[in-house]
Amino acid sequence: MEPQPRRRGRPAGARAGETPTRERILAAARSVFAERGYDKTSIRAIAKAAEVDPALVHHYFGAKEQVFEAAIEVSFAPALNIADLLAGGLEDIGERFARYFLGVWERPMTRAPLLAVVRSAVTNETAAAVLRGFVLRALVSRVVGELDVPDARLRAELAASQMVGVALLRYVVRIEPLASADVEEIVAYVGPTLQRYLTAGPAAGTH
Amino acid sequence: MEPQPRRRGRPAGARAGETPTRERILAAARSVFAERGYDKTSIRAIAKAAEVDPALVHHYFGAKEQVFEAAIEVSFAPALNIADLLAGGLEDIGERFARYFLGVWERPMTRAPLLAVVRSAVTNETAAAVLRGFVLRALVSRVVGELDVPDARLRAELAASQMVGVALLRYVVRIEPLASADVEEIVAYVGPTLQRYLTAGPAAGTH
Repeated sequence: MEPQPRRRGRPAGARAGETPTRERILAAARSVFAERGYDKTSIRAIAKAAEVDPALVHHYFGAKEQVFEAAIEVSFAPALNIADLLAGGLEDIGERFARYFLGVWERPMTRAPLLAVVRSAVTNETAAAVLRGFVLRALVSRVVGELDVPDARLRAELAASQMVGVALLRYVVRIEPLASADVEEIVAYVGPTLQRYLTAGPAAGTH
Repeated sequence: MEPQPRRRGRPAGARAGETPTRERILAAARSVFAERGYDKTSIRAIAKAAEVDPALVHHYFGAKEQVFEAAIEVSFAPALNIADLLAGGLEDIGERFARYFLGVWERPMTRAPLLAVVRSAVTNETAAAVLRGFVLRALVSRVVGELDVPDARLRAELAASQMVGVALLRYVVRIEPLASADVEEIVAYVGPTLQRYLTAGPAAGTH
């Protein structure tokens, strides 16, 4: 491995979105939001954790709401690698989705930030609005584009609701035996649910 | 209808569990927990709202955890009238369960305290433990007794997870179109999911 030359300072023309400072602030924001929740997090606290001036946080992101939005985007990144999932076709998409999302929640590294986002959204209206916009734009819309069923958006949201509910009872409330059940056992039950929501014909007679 | 004689005062030997004071404290506890969440609620604040001495709260319930438990019990009472639901047999139990639970969440009167409990449980470990014990004892156990399938308890919890997830995305995060969808449309999708969890044969091959 050849040693990389260390760059000193950064070129005046470097784009803001790619500077290490922005990343450092974002990492700090994620951990402060995760620790304290949306309500109790301030721009000042994020700046302090990132060891920068609060003005820099404003410069890169804007208000607290936007910092939270950026932090959500990073937190959900592993859960949003759904292009690969969709590329596998629709035949056993329910099972693959269930296994993939449970996998994301199983790893403490990826679970903690998701949990932080859910906690913030449940207790704060602004955080809920940010999560709502993000889920719609980045998750539901992508899945909907691949479905060839009526009510595609509602169906994608119902699939999401099943996974959110399992995550809440398994990882937050930790109800037994769900909390200790084998991932594959849950996949065997939940996979067909997602499959039906995402691909089956219209629901039987709505009264 | 004959007029009931009004009782004046209460007999010295009246059981503590049936006194109006206990009910007044409980009502106050529900509204304070709902407003502030578990973390920010104190026995003193509950006593103040009920216009009694804090010692009386301790006398009737014990510590904050026990007051919360009693408040949960009252909050969930409308959701726990499941004896009638179960009495209807298992044939379309999924649809009936879905319609019933959505009905409870639809009414602002019954939604507010449920929401308060969920918010507290998501953000506080003690509140989560109380909810966990309560859900297991009062809800899951009763349903499990009526089911004649393997993994009955896990299945009841998976059914609960679907309803919790819908409640969270529809009433808390308020994602569209799920938030505005007709109750019967949701019942048509979710009913078969609950039906399969609660009554269908064992899940297909767990890998």
